[in-house]
Amino acid sequence: MNNALVRVFAPATVANVAVGFDILGFAINGPGDEVVVRRCATPGLRITQITGTGLKQLPLEAEKNTAGFSALRLLEHLKATSLGIEMEIHKKMPFGSGLGSSAASAAAGVFAVNELLGQPLSKVELLPFAVAGEQIADGAYHADNVGPSLLGGITFIRDNATLDVHQLPVPAELFAAVVYPFVEILTKDAREVLSKQTSLAQCIQQTGNLGALLIGFYENDYELIRRSLTDVIIEPQRARLIPNFLEVKNSALRAGALGSSISGAGPSVFALCRSRATAQQAAQAMQAAFTAVDIQSEAFVSAINTDGAVRL
Amino acid sequence: MNNALVRVFAPATVANVAVGFDILGFAINGPGDEVVVRRCATPGLRITQITGTGLKQLPLEAEKNTAGFSALRLLEHLKATSLGIEMEIHKKMPFGSGLGSSAASAAAGVFAVNELLGQPLSKVELLPFAVAGEQIADGAYHADNVGPSLLGGITFIRDNATLDVHQLPVPAELFAAVVYPFVEILTKDAREVLSKQTSLAQCIQQTGNLGALLIGFYENDYELIRRSLTDVIIEPQRARLIPNFLEVKNSALRAGALGSSISGAGPSVFALCRSRATAQQAAQAMQAAFTAVDIQSEAFVSAINTDGAVRL
Repeated sequence: MNNALVRVFAPATVANVAVGFDILGFAINGPGDEVVVRRCATPGLRITQITGTGLKQLPLEAEKNTAGFSALRLLEHLKATSLGIEMEIHKKMPFGSGLGSSAASAAAGVFAVNELLGQPLSKVELLPFAVAGEQIADGAYHADNVGPSLLGGITFIRDNATLDVHQLPVPAELFAAVVYPFVEILTKDAREVLSKQTSLAQCIQQTGNLGALLIGFYENDYELIRRSLTDVIIEPQRARLIPNFLEVKNSALRAGALGSSISGAGPSVFALCRSRATAQQAAQAMQAAFTAVDIQSEAFVSAINTDGAVRL
Repeated sequence: MNNALVRVFAPATVANVAVGFDILGFAINGPGDEVVVRRCATPGLRITQITGTGLKQLPLEAEKNTAGFSALRLLEHLKATSLGIEMEIHKKMPFGSGLGSSAASAAAGVFAVNELLGQPLSKVELLPFAVAGEQIADGAYHADNVGPSLLGGITFIRDNATLDVHQLPVPAELFAAVVYPFVEILTKDAREVLSKQTSLAQCIQQTGNLGALLIGFYENDYELIRRSLTDVIIEPQRARLIPNFLEVKNSALRAGALGSSISGAGPSVFALCRSRATAQQAAQAMQAAFTAVDIQSEAFVSAINTDGAVRL
């Protein structure tokens, strides 16, 4: 117990990354969520304030809140539930955007409490608590957003059930353009449009692309990354959920992006690029393609965030 | 033209490697095929001798023979079809074994002629000719056997149509045990038992394992390799084609193998192990499990062959 007050940030993330449905994600430098925790005399964890949620309300009850839930599970694990802790959650990113908003809250919540308690656990050890926290919002036990939000970088998950999570090398010139169009897609709906079957041929193609993308990250082979970023299974089924998606994506490619696809369950669209300048051009081009169909949007251009959750 | 006679060897290979159906393969040090080529006065390529085929006969007509076909396509590419070349093919490995026999012949054929002509092309440039040669035997345009037989090492193919082929790092302590049981499986039959559909859940699981296996190779993480070598799509469908397969596989695992599955289309079964001693124990255990059902077999224990086709 070495701190009276701790303020942390956990970043937004892009899950799936075209060819790694449920098993691949990366973090960006912004936006993200901030969580503040402080000791207090009254035993138990209380959420005292949630800001930045706009019209939507998030539960103040800790057991029902992703940040609170993940923190509570950590406190139970540490047999520290009787500690008095107040938590503030400052949402500084859109939710329902496909950028891992609930994952960022869960990562920030558990990371903040771990810092407050003097880092009894490592970041990797915090992962199960954060994944459990996101699960109460998302329904699925998946680390493809929580992993990169907590750990940073590009995260690969062999198996979500056992959280067999690995951090991949991040090519130095890799930048992301992420555009969030102001339309709503529910994760549940995005899951429901997916067929439970796929063809063996598509599975082989996807596996080839996923493997090659990993090789591209290890070998700094940007042209291999370019050839690998083609999703033949998920994107074709979800594309219609996002207005003008194909034109948005193709605009990014014409602007020089290595690849472009849906961020998580959407509606955000990301592009991976070889330089910040190209990422900026891709972001502009994607925004223009949304504007063309009267959809307003917000753009984020960022290097791959290799820090994950950090103390502010 | 710097040689009157060239003798080459191309090794046997293990394709699929549990989780990389059609896109992953590795070479072993033996067995393999030898091809001898020499200049002669009569224009054109002629196959003068094929040995080691046992009861089976392979076509002497160059256009119908995998080694001859691949060599002819190279000669056409080099506009050298009028050269007089005699070729001998010495099969020193079983065919129909799932060890890439036709791929080894194709690789050896094209490699030998390229050597005879003074190496006008690199090994990678020879790949399309060798794949075309194997195709006349196997029917499919696949580099998962030809790639490692020609290039050596562990070969990953993002896309077979464009031969987007990559060599992976080979962990130094990785050894293979390969057991060829004396039963026949036709590649055609092995393909026909496969459903053209798979579930999305299985595809995700397979992709997670394939990606993690690649990470294991890059990171020398033998325990990750162990966790990754589980085929949830192909092996369950093909297992029944191989007598006592599950017991053979489990024998290898009990002997300490990192993983075990069907080599290519079978009937050979391979195990990857962390040391030569473990690979030897796994090979013995697998042979014993075949013997238990009155199936005789031949075992090969080898480091991963990183040379591929070589001049003898």
